Order: sequence, then structure tokens, then C-alpha cells
Amino acid sequence: MSDPSSAGPTHRVRVRYCETDRMAVAHHGSYVAWFEEARTEWMRARGKTYRQMEDEGNLLQVVELVCRYHKPVDYDDVVAITVRPGEVSKVAVVLEYECRRERDGALCATGSTKLACVGRDGRLRRLPGEFAGAAGAVDRPAQA
Amino acid sequence: MSDPSSAGPTHRVRVRYCETDRMAVAHHGSYVAWFEEARTEWMRARGKTYRQMEDEGNLLQVVELVCRYHKPVDYDDVVAITVRPGEVSKVAVVLEYECRRERDGALCATGSTKLACVGRDGRLRRLPGEFAGAAGAVDRPAQA
Amino acid sequence: MSDPSSAGPTHRVRVRYCETDRMAVAHHGSYVAWFEEARTEWMRARGKTYRQMEDEGNLLQVVELVCRYHKPVDYDDVVAITVRPGEVSKVAVVLEYECRRERDGALCATGSTKLACVGRDGRLRRLPGEFAGAAGAVDRPAQA
Amino acid sequence: MSDPSSAGPTHRVRVRYCETDRMAVAHHGSYVAWFEEARTEWMRARGKTYRQMEDEGNLLQVVELVCRYHKPVDYDDVVAITVRPGEVSKVAVVLEYECRRERDGALCATGSTKLACVGRDGRLRRLPGEFAGAAGAVDRPAQA
Repeated sequence: MSDPSSAGPTHRVRVRYCETDRMAVAHHGSYVAWFEEARTEWMRARGKTYRQMEDEGNLLQVVELVCRYHKPVDYDDVVAITVRPGEVSKVAVVLEYECRRERDGALCATGSTKLACVGRDGRLRRLPGEFAGAAGAVDRPAQA
Repeated sequence: MSDPSSAGPTHRVRVRYCETDRMAVAHHGSYVAWFEEARTEWMRARGKTYRQMEDEGNLLQVVELVCRYHKPVDYDDVVAITVRPGEVSKVAVVLEYECRRERDGALCATGSTKLACVGRDGRLRRLPGEFAGAAGAVDRPAQA
Repeated sequence: MSDPSSAGPTHRVRVRYCETDRMAVAHHGSYVAWFEEARTEWMRARGKTYRQMEDEGNLLQVVELVCRYHKPVDYDDVVAITVRPGEVSKVAVVLEYECRRERDGALCATGSTKLACVGRDGRLRRLPGEFAGAAGAVDRPAQA
Repeated sequence: MSDPSSAGPTHRVRVRYCETDRMAVAHHGSYVAWFEEARTEWMRARGKTYRQMEDEGNLLQVVELVCRYHKPVDYDDVVAITVRPGEVSKVAVVLEYECRRERDGALCATGSTKLACVGRDGRLRRLPGEFAGAAGAVDRPAQA
């Protein structure tokens, strides 16, 4: 299990009208943007923004995305997203997400993204030190 | 001129990574979602949510959208959006938007949406009383 | 392995400008829309449109999404997407996707969506007969 | 009036599921992407792709967007979009769009985008020769 202390503050998003679809619930693709926004805030809370990291030439490319949908959320619902680091290697980190409907606490979706660190040339790079900290905070073995 | 007191509290959005494009700034289409989110909050601040209004059978259809782009905003920038009611008739209301880049106050975009009130059958309906209030708050003559 | 004959004609999408991001390639979330468009066309080629299926009260909810990213695609690139049915049970079907960059045939992304059939009440329903056909076309055992 | 010969071939888009919203029709923001896709094809038909133009350092920034909505379109509807050049100056061009629902020819939306030519430095530049051709094809006076 992850050390809860490595989770940043829960990030809240309110479902936009344009994020709903013909089924009158949030479209399954909307969670991709919410995961992304939540990890932006998770990184900010850890001390360096992703924008700064990217400006320094360290890009995080999404190499794998997984999302499982448990309960729908509707327009104007607030979704609370918790981010936790999973496996961390020298060049990649997995972040795990849990989305809850704020009005009743129901678990809506869980997922993960595997992010690889690359330079502007697209070649793999060692993750910056900030993520080494994330690695230390979890009790799963780091992998190559 | 609009009575400033009819403007709700300024709504802030932070530019999402997925809202940027190949020019490395926010895509011009992103403002459509921001205007929408800002008017959702403007309505909430006035006492009735748009979700409640729609659940009561009063739908606001966008019949006209205008946006003028003055300065770009980048990923992670905060955009402050002010909403003010413009012309109001029995069945339609114009909302006007002003977007400023929070870090320097620069005017990024201005725009408007004309919203017509329709029922689930798509036929025009009289705007609910909440908007009559908006009409009273502006000094432009109401139009049919 | 899937019976290749169960794959519909390859569906082509051209990367839209708004689908690119600050890294100057297609955003990873764009593939969600492309998978969706490709399965719409796969269903059309099999004889019944998803719109017709939904109008008949059989909704396909995405319960799991997986995407692995291998090579980036840029604005105006054509992406060729092949859809193949994977596991099929009485109430759910997995569709698998393979995306290739048309200009050089490079594998860009692979992924899958698990779709559960539900009624307007959100309760699980037996998949319509069209998918039983998909089940017959694959040699993996059906699962509950 | 525009010379019809300056309109490229009509561009068709099929409404994606993710482009619909809670009103069960295409979201008003979806037209922004369709206008963009239609002008990409209009430029391709005139002999130089926008991607090539951008690779040569000539960027077209949207400085104004207008859209008027006449009739809704639903998921899986085909929308036929015609593009025509409007006013052209040395540094900017207006493109006008007309969207029709293919199944019945109904006019769904009309709109325009004003595009200014800028370099990578964000400074205004003279439009490339391809657009001078567009200017010649219309009978409105060019403006500074």
C-alpha cells in the first residue's frame, strides 16, 4: 500500500457542461483531463510545477493510461481526486488516481498513468530529484 | 454600461495541459468551455444553479457565440473571467465575458453568448424570474 | 487470436489542430475520441449503428479503458485504427484497438475498452444479437 | 457576395459521441473544431497545407470567432461544412463557414473566423501568396 502521506491534498473539479454527453453523465474521456489536472496540482503541492519542469527540458510523456469506471457523475457534480505515486523507476513513474463524487463519497473511477521522462529530443532521461522523493515515499520496490 | 453590481464574483480557471495546442498556448476553442464554466458560477452566485434550472425544464440554448482574442495564455496560467449580463428580452439573455491573465492583469479575450430559453420540446419559453432580475440590473432597454 | 475477418475496415482519422498540445503532438486524451469513432464505424460496418442501438434502449457504457502509447502523431497526420472484438460475455464486450501512423505504418498506440450493456435505468442487460456474432467470431471463451 | 468558385469542396464531419452533451445534441463548442478542420481541408484543396505553412514559420492566429446556431445536430449526424473567404487584408483573412445537416439539408450553423498571420515571434506578417489568391477571388475590397 502507498504511504498516505505521499498523497497531495485531494483535488476537486466540477463537471463542466461540455464534459457531459448524450447519456447525460460525464463522458468517459473527461477523466483523462481530470487526472492530468490532479497530477499538475499534486506536483505543485510537492514544490515544483510541471510547467517549470517542462521549461527545464524534462517532459513527462504518458506511456500508459488505465481507467475503470464505477459510478457516473453528472453535470455540476464535484469530483474529488486523490493522487498517489505507484511504481517508480529511474526514468518512469506510475501515478494512481481515485475519483469520488463529493456529494455522497461514492467511488466513481480509479485509474493510473505511467509517465516517462524524456528530453526535447524524445529520448529517455532520468526523472528529476522530486520524483526520487516520491519513490522513497512508497513501499513498493523501484523497478528498472 | 452594465451595472457592475450585477457581475458575479470573478471566476478563475487554470489552463489545463490538454487545452493547449501546437502553438504552445491555450487553443482558441478552450475559451468556450471557460465562458460556460464562468456563467455556471455566475448563476450559482445569483441563487439558482443552471443544473436546477435545467431540471425544472428551462434549458438555455446558445444561439450566438462571439470571442475576440487579444493576448495568449499558456498552460498553468490562471485566467480570471468576469461575467456581466447584456441585453435581456423575454426569452433570451446576452452574457458578456472578459478574461484576464491573473499574473499580469492583461486582457486576453472578450466575448459574449446569447442564450435562448427553451423547453424540452425545443420551443421558446419565457426566461425564469432570476433573469428578469438580471434585466433590471442593466440599463440597456429590454428587447423582444 | 481474433479472427481477422471480424475486424471491420480500418478507420482513418486526421489529427485536428485542437487535438495537439504544448508538446506539439496529439494529446494522449485524443485517442479516447478516436477509439470511440472507430468503434462507431466498426458497428456500422457490421449492420447496425450504435445510434440505432441506443435509440432501442441498449446503451454501451465504458467500464474500462486502457491505452498504451508507442509513438507520437502530429497535427494533420492520418491515423489508421483497426478494431477487433476481444472477450465477449452475455453483458459485456471488450474491443481492442490498434493505431498506426499512415505515412510510415508505425504503431502509435494500442488499447482496449470494455463496454457493458445497460438499459436507460442503468441496469445490466444482455448484449443484443449483433454482439453474439462478434462473440462467435473470436476463439476466446466467453466469460460471465 | 463571395465568388462560389473560391469555396473548396464541402467538408463532411460526423458528430462524435464525445461531442454531444446533456441536451443530447452536439455541444456548441464542437463547431469550433469543425470550422478548424474544414479550413484545414479548404487550404489543402488550394494547394498548400496549413501544416506546411506553419512549418515555414507563418502561423495563423484566430483573433475573432463568431458562430450562430440555427438548428441542432445529433450524434452520428453528418455535417457538411462550406468554407468561403471573406475580407482579406495584407495580414489577415476572414473565413466564413456554413454548416448543413446532410440528412435534410437544414442550415445548422453559420460563422466566421478572422485569422491573423504571425511569425514564431508573435509579430504580424504579410499573408503568404496563397491567400492573396483568396483575396482576388472575392469581390469585397481588401482592408488594411
